[in-house]
Amino acid sequence: MTQSDTRDTKPSQDVALIVGGGPGISASCARLFAERGMPVGIAARDPDKSVLQNLEKTHGVRRYACDASEPAAVELLFQNVVRDLGAPTLVVHNIDGRMAGIFRKGITEADPSMALETLRNSAFSAFLVGQQAARLMRENTPNANGTKGTIIFTNASAALKGFPLSAAFAMACQAKSGLAQSMARELMPQGIHIVNVPIDAAIGWTQEDGTRAHRLAGTTVDDNMADPDSIAETYLQLHRQHRSTWAFEVVLRPWVEKW
Amino acid sequence: MTQSDTRDTKPSQDVALIVGGGPGISASCARLFAERGMPVGIAARDPDKSVLQNLEKTHGVRRYACDASEPAAVELLFQNVVRDLGAPTLVVHNIDGRMAGIFRKGITEADPSMALETLRNSAFSAFLVGQQAARLMRENTPNANGTKGTIIFTNASAALKGFPLSAAFAMACQAKSGLAQSMARELMPQGIHIVNVPIDAAIGWTQEDGTRAHRLAGTTVDDNMADPDSIAETYLQLHRQHRSTWAFEVVLRPWVEKW
Amino acid sequence: MTQSDTRDTKPSQDVALIVGGGPGISASCARLFAERGMPVGIAARDPDKSVLQNLEKTHGVRRYACDASEPAAVELLFQNVVRDLGAPTLVVHNIDGRMAGIFRKGITEADPSMALETLRNSAFSAFLVGQQAARLMRENTPNANGTKGTIIFTNASAALKGFPLSAAFAMACQAKSGLAQSMARELMPQGIHIVNVPIDAAIGWTQEDGTRAHRLAGTTVDDNMADPDSIAETYLQLHRQHRSTWAFEVVLRPWVEKW
Amino acid sequence: MTQSDTRDTKPSQDVALIVGGGPGISASCARLFAERGMPVGIAARDPDKSVLQNLEKTHGVRRYACDASEPAAVELLFQNVVRDLGAPTLVVHNIDGRMAGIFRKGITEADPSMALETLRNSAFSAFLVGQQAARLMRENTPNANGTKGTIIFTNASAALKGFPLSAAFAMACQAKSGLAQSMARELMPQGIHIVNVPIDAAIGWTQEDGTRAHRLAGTTVDDNMADPDSIAETYLQLHRQHRSTWAFEVVLRPWVEKW
Repeated sequence: MTQSDTRDTKPSQDVALIVGGGPGISASCARLFAERGMPVGIAARDPDKSVLQNLEKTHGVRRYACDASEPAAVELLFQNVVRDLGAPTLVVHNIDGRMAGIFRKGITEADPSMALETLRNSAFSAFLVGQQAARLMRENTPNANGTKGTIIFTNASAALKGFPLSAAFAMACQAKSGLAQSMARELMPQGIHIVNVPIDAAIGWTQEDGTRAHRLAGTTVDDNMADPDSIAETYLQLHRQHRSTWAFEVVLRPWVEKW
Repeated sequence: MTQSDTRDTKPSQDVALIVGGGPGISASCARLFAERGMPVGIAARDPDKSVLQNLEKTHGVRRYACDASEPAAVELLFQNVVRDLGAPTLVVHNIDGRMAGIFRKGITEADPSMALETLRNSAFSAFLVGQQAARLMRENTPNANGTKGTIIFTNASAALKGFPLSAAFAMACQAKSGLAQSMARELMPQGIHIVNVPIDAAIGWTQEDGTRAHRLAGTTVDDNMADPDSIAETYLQLHRQHRSTWAFEVVLRPWVEKW
Repeated sequence: MTQSDTRDTKPSQDVALIVGGGPGISASCARLFAERGMPVGIAARDPDKSVLQNLEKTHGVRRYACDASEPAAVELLFQNVVRDLGAPTLVVHNIDGRMAGIFRKGITEADPSMALETLRNSAFSAFLVGQQAARLMRENTPNANGTKGTIIFTNASAALKGFPLSAAFAMACQAKSGLAQSMARELMPQGIHIVNVPIDAAIGWTQEDGTRAHRLAGTTVDDNMADPDSIAETYLQLHRQHRSTWAFEVVLRPWVEKW
Repeated sequence: MTQSDTRDTKPSQDVALIVGGGPGISASCARLFAERGMPVGIAARDPDKSVLQNLEKTHGVRRYACDASEPAAVELLFQNVVRDLGAPTLVVHNIDGRMAGIFRKGITEADPSMALETLRNSAFSAFLVGQQAARLMRENTPNANGTKGTIIFTNASAALKGFPLSAAFAMACQAKSGLAQSMARELMPQGIHIVNVPIDAAIGWTQEDGTRAHRLAGTTVDDNMADPDSIAETYLQLHRQHRSTWAFEVVLRPWVEKW
């Protein structure tokens, strides 16, 4: 039996909350965390979409309706999660914020109200979720690895580099990085692990027929899309890192990605 | 006569607009640009403060009232500048966005509405100003250096590193960097020079008695505050760079700054 | 049974080589990799030091004498490893290169020959080890995760930031980062996973009495030194990442580290 | 008369030394610095090449033979410059280090001895030049801007990003960045301005017929090569920056460059 197995002896104490509910990273996290024995909540604007109903059926995932860009809604979400599942120890903010109406528009054509909405949906909701999570986690007892809780911000390659035709998205992603950095420097010495995870890739998902998308349309290279199950696994490993060796930022990209 | 002197032969065609009106960088820019023969406009929420009235008296600077976080107000500002001074070729966004009520507050104590306000005041206003400037500059004739216009975003050290107790400020600064990066990659190939200038320092200013603050209170080292006149000079040099050798990001810090 | 358990079905095929043989990361890696069933080789200038002899006794680790800054010696090392253990699939370059005679010396006082020696010992040896590893791994069959092999460069915080009084060390660390980046962009699309791991911390080790150092002398905070067992665990996780989601750089630091 | 003109009142006190002698940046710097009244020395392995002989004729530039990767040779160079021109206040290290025999070779094919030679020629020579310059500049009297001297390291885009097929070059460039960072943190508080200038571009030069190359072969876009005269101008501006607002790193790239 290895060190990592013995150290984290009470995984059942863990409670996970995933904010943002799609068929990719959120669903993979929900499944993996539930399989490892955690009560899992998932919050989305529309908690009734089929992917979430399926997660409830197959993995007992609890569904919550929440507009994560509204302060009161986020506060209520965390109250409900504490009531239903217990205080969370692993919170994933998984809202991308890309909006069809503005993404891939030139700066001179972009609708300002959509730019502000992008900032609200992605970066400001991350602030709200991070704030509520931190308030609760401060009161947690450290686990065997010295961790009171882990807050993971899923991010995108625009966090590393602002691309043309996506100014608002670059703003939101880099704002999220700024939030994560500030929270990390403030909260890591208090035992709360903060992680920023820019995914430099298109992300695969489970398709209607149950198979996994793993290849971009029109390409012949396998695995040039990031497998969300593998991302979920990295998230779990990050949560289980010992506090003497915490990673703050991990960029994940497929083997053939250009960067 | 040197290359740089001969190249930029028509400085009188230049028109400058400074958004944000304080006694530091904005005032120094206004003075320097006016001394070099540019018509200069300066926009502020309160255009009647004495520093701006003085700039009007001493340097003929035109004052504009503008809440730069409002799309319609920014659109109107640029219309008025074009009418009064001509299409701008040098635009400086100089709004810091730090709010006393939230800066230096822990993430768990920070007022969410102030966090959103910080994003609006600093990052979103930069989007609006950048957008209007880009729309006009696209139509400019390139000057002798191949430049249709220069847009400079004054930024802070939080753009480089999110510090504790200032999550909202870090979000705003890094959002501004993301904006600048995206705009640079989009607009530089169209002849518009985009620059992000994180000032990693406290900034000096002209004090009531006319002398310059240059030293932090309680220290004995001269020039440990950034001299805004020197910053303005760097801005002018950036505007005059030939398009074959544009700098996108310049971090300015005093010789004794820790980093 | 989870995805990660099923995917990596033949861990016994793995062969590990660790270059650099100290009581910290190298010893922890050797133990962990051996416990997971890998044949393990470890190379050091002096392979007879007691820590390595103990690893041979307790974990069957094979010891090799090698001056890793000598091209012919590194070539011979890999030939011997292939002969004894098989072609390596996991190679860790773990030579720090700090030299007492130059580290913490001002640039004007530093002995140039020691600066060059620092570059040779750390960065150039990483080039040699990376080159030999890549030559062999290219010929490996991909494992269940699509990986032909993993090359991990242990690095230091100077890779991220050149500190005063350690110019030569900063040069070596950043050279190592440059090597890792170039190799990653070249070899990842060929199925070889390259990772750069700056450890932003003092590193603990097993003391004479068998206990682990975990706290800096003179401090009261637990776990303010990086636990090498935890580092080894992260290395193993990196080796097992699926190629659709590879991390290239992971910075590890203790929860209370300033950065 | 503007601030910058009045501040730096004694340009004749300046003494410039350029290490590395090609027809691009080195020649442009030599011309510009001489035109501004500085005694200028230029050091190269072969000081008799025609571009340097011409600089002597047209601008009175002093030529020095020096293998800058040899400690004794660099020490002697500075002694000779002090004897001939006075203690330097502006030193440019302008050795690229790319070697035809290894550049664009895959890591598995690259000749190790050439990799080491690349490190020596570029990074180690920068260490030697920086060290000698710092020793002398420490003793200088600060000029009107508070500067005892400026040391500029010309660098390449590989300093920012290690590209495939150029591992040794990436090592050398990033080592140079590490050197510059360490020296900056150590020497800037002593009044010596250190600057790292990655040029993210192909660099134009004066062709046989006296015209400037400004466009990459096979392209139709003007000014897609960096103009070395403009680079020289930026170097001079950096040297003249007031110490309250020093830039440490400036990346220069043409308007149409992809990054």
